[in-house]
Amino acid sequence: MKKTIAFDADDTLWHNESIFHETTHTFMDLVSHYVSASELEERLYAVERRNLALFGYGIKGFMLSMIETVIELSEGKATGTEIQQVIDLGKYMLTHPINVLEDVEETVSALKDDYRLMVITKGDLLDQESKIARSGLADYFELIEIVSEKDEKTYTEVLKRNKIDINQFLMVGNSLKSDILPICTLGGKAVHIPYHLNWELDKVEKSYDFNEQHYATLSSVALLPLFLEEIDF
Amino acid sequence: MKKTIAFDADDTLWHNESIFHETTHTFMDLVSHYVSASELEERLYAVERRNLALFGYGIKGFMLSMIETVIELSEGKATGTEIQQVIDLGKYMLTHPINVLEDVEETVSALKDDYRLMVITKGDLLDQESKIARSGLADYFELIEIVSEKDEKTYTEVLKRNKIDINQFLMVGNSLKSDILPICTLGGKAVHIPYHLNWELDKVEKSYDFNEQHYATLSSVALLPLFLEEIDF
Repeated sequence: MKKTIAFDADDTLWHNESIFHETTHTFMDLVSHYVSASELEERLYAVERRNLALFGYGIKGFMLSMIETVIELSEGKATGTEIQQVIDLGKYMLTHPINVLEDVEETVSALKDDYRLMVITKGDLLDQESKIARSGLADYFELIEIVSEKDEKTYTEVLKRNKIDINQFLMVGNSLKSDILPICTLGGKAVHIPYHLNWELDKVEKSYDFNEQHYATLSSVALLPLFLEEIDF
Repeated sequence: MKKTIAFDADDTLWHNESIFHETTHTFMDLVSHYVSASELEERLYAVERRNLALFGYGIKGFMLSMIETVIELSEGKATGTEIQQVIDLGKYMLTHPINVLEDVEETVSALKDDYRLMVITKGDLLDQESKIARSGLADYFELIEIVSEKDEKTYTEVLKRNKIDINQFLMVGNSLKSDILPICTLGGKAVHIPYHLNWELDKVEKSYDFNEQHYATLSSVALLPLFLEEIDF
């Protein structure tokens, strides 16, 4: 039985946070007559955080949070025309071309014969499926799991459902909070490949104890095959 | 190996369309100064249909479609305050108590020892997970699949992923289009249990050829155990 390597998708296989970043800036311009850019960012994160348990991750929830932010900032005076512009921003995000990160395709292509490759990603179901299809990478992955949260409970369920032994499993991702630390806690192996942007709500709480780090950090996914050889995985 | 019985969730295990129905009526009252009730319904369905490929099924997409409908009807003049009322309607839907349909719990309880029970449902990932948890029925089901579409392609993938032989599989649901006909086409068994309301976009095209019907219709889920005995499944 081959060992399993699971990849996070957004900001690990393809650019994603950059699209949110770009959209947030266009959104700032749209509402600049209500509020300064720095205050807007704070208000938007606060609304997103408040709505997260109800909406979950993904672009549709982000659209609804942007709309609520405009309404709050304008004290209910924002017009339908303004709000339609916000919806159109979100629709643009949903159809944005998928830009696969550098060296990703070469790497998964090099690994696919020796390992069972998997994607574990969170967000809106249809949107994530659509991105996987549009990325052109789907055929490299034997297993695809789209989940609503990436915590120890979810990873335990995903491993159980797919009959994967945690000792035969390695997770690759850009988010310490979602991809790396839960796997380390479960006793699995994880490789952190940072992305140049981090979503505010995906940052690790400062109180987290980093003394017991058991993951590796690579500067590029291209280094993964050599790293796997070195650790004999 | 036990045979598998899969249940649709919304309007099969618990009331759902009734909540959309109720919300649509409150929404009509909210926007009654823009449009008549009958015209509104038509306009809302048209917007939902237009957005379906982008938003998929579920409450968040429905919220965004209601918002677009108000904006269109008001020619951009709707205010933030009005749109916030629409968002609040959607949030209410997301936290609505789950009302399990009559005889469902007794039936799944009676079947769970003899069959492997499964849920196959479409909609927003987090919302469907939350409904299954809140229904109190989760422990009866060994497998839970939340999918973005219920067509032959998806069912084929779900069966393959779970290593289920279509000859050892029976699907139960209220929607001919989503639960029954795709399974019949794949050569599987299906039991239709109608719900008293039908979502406009979930109706079967009139052109469908019903001459080759191979499913049963029961008036209540309580009749399912006896039916299974009769057909020796």
